[in-house]
Amino acid sequence: MSQTEASTIETTDSAVTAAILVIGDEILSGRTKDKNIGYIAEYLTNIGIDLREVRVVPDIEEEIVAAVNALRSRYTHVFTTGGIGPTHDDITADSVARAFGVPIDVDERAVKLLLERIPKADLNEARLRMARIPEGADLIENSVSKAPGFSIGNVHVMAGVPTIMQAMLDAVTPRLKTGKKILSRSFPARAKEGDVAVPLRAVQEHFPDVSMGSYPTFEEGVGPTTNLVLRSRDQTRLDEAEAAVKAMLEQIHIRLAGRA
Amino acid sequence: MSQTEASTIETTDSAVTAAILVIGDEILSGRTKDKNIGYIAEYLTNIGIDLREVRVVPDIEEEIVAAVNALRSRYTHVFTTGGIGPTHDDITADSVARAFGVPIDVDERAVKLLLERIPKADLNEARLRMARIPEGADLIENSVSKAPGFSIGNVHVMAGVPTIMQAMLDAVTPRLKTGKKILSRSFPARAKEGDVAVPLRAVQEHFPDVSMGSYPTFEEGVGPTTNLVLRSRDQTRLDEAEAAVKAMLEQIHIRLAGRA
Repeated sequence: MSQTEASTIETTDSAVTAAILVIGDEILSGRTKDKNIGYIAEYLTNIGIDLREVRVVPDIEEEIVAAVNALRSRYTHVFTTGGIGPTHDDITADSVARAFGVPIDVDERAVKLLLERIPKADLNEARLRMARIPEGADLIENSVSKAPGFSIGNVHVMAGVPTIMQAMLDAVTPRLKTGKKILSRSFPARAKEGDVAVPLRAVQEHFPDVSMGSYPTFEEGVGPTTNLVLRSRDQTRLDEAEAAVKAMLEQIHIRLAGRA
Repeated sequence: MSQTEASTIETTDSAVTAAILVIGDEILSGRTKDKNIGYIAEYLTNIGIDLREVRVVPDIEEEIVAAVNALRSRYTHVFTTGGIGPTHDDITADSVARAFGVPIDVDERAVKLLLERIPKADLNEARLRMARIPEGADLIENSVSKAPGFSIGNVHVMAGVPTIMQAMLDAVTPRLKTGKKILSRSFPARAKEGDVAVPLRAVQEHFPDVSMGSYPTFEEGVGPTTNLVLRSRDQTRLDEAEAAVKAMLEQIHIRLAGRA
């Protein structure tokens, strides 16, 4: 596995960073398989935000409060998923309010959105829970089923259902501070990872600003091989690094051919 | 989303708990989609271990050390995945050694295993990295590709490649302290989550030792509906809770039918 030097790229002052906080016992019990982490990770990479950490915690208020506070102080953005439905264990909104030390109550803007979908007679105590929004938060539109998410400070609270989460992520993105997108190059090494590792490290040392990842894989008819991924925010440096790695690979191929 | 009272089940003294620590920039960049969290979560549930937290961190030593130490002091077991290959950024073994404050070096037991698969001439510096094991650790067998994982204290260090991780999890399980398995019942509520939530909470209050989860879903030809999941370590209490919930659902169906 690979890409340690992404750390070098990402610790520049200009980096916009993020964490994901997944909230829900159903993920921890294995009953529901998370589909949001991979989606958000790829989405953030594409808009120039570096995902630095993910946590999954249970539906327990102290756990959520502690995780929200640990993450929001460390990263530019925190994205939470899950725990904003109508049941007794949907405690994300209240927990986030507590993390920020602000009051929370039924929000008239959110009620109005719910009424676009739910008849007034059906807007019972449980469903009104979905309109509980911390004071000072901005709503995040939910184009799928209306019940909104919200942003407070740098914390963006979204649903756990993947289709709804994805709609909310689209809705919140225009408001986000984003960074310079990381560019990448991917190509096969045509050699085993164990043969590539040492020379790759030597090239990596010359390009501390280019992340060099190697991923072992198995190619039908060829056997164990390796894919390389180079990542940088600088096009020119990426070109130079690619040329250096490809020259290094040529040497490996000559050496291995001589030994065969 | 649901199941808050699992917390109540799990905070009994007898509970055996766990955390997963996923190590790898490739997961955070979204390039690789994690397949291990859901697998391990379900696996642990089936052997009576309560997964309480998951973290994903980058290939940065301080991050790994901090996460290992935070998690190992809180939970019965910690399972790590990723970062034990041959490349410069495979730093999990060294980071775990540092977290425990023990030396690490090439381990002859591990070298012997590698030689079962790799010719001695090919056992270069990079591949020997895969034999670096912290002092005092027990090896975890890798029936897929030989390079072993290891257990030190309550931390079990496994590969990131899913097939290898799964083989290692099978190998380490007989050594693990496990708990009493949580039993579960699952049945459809035949009502919307917003109609079920308040009465379900009332029943939940009578059964603090039974986790009651509700999961909104969409049934073709029926519309939005809800699945209920009850979980407990006690068969009798689970039976009683199921009867109580089903009686509650009957009342809801009568009320909704009367209104239709």
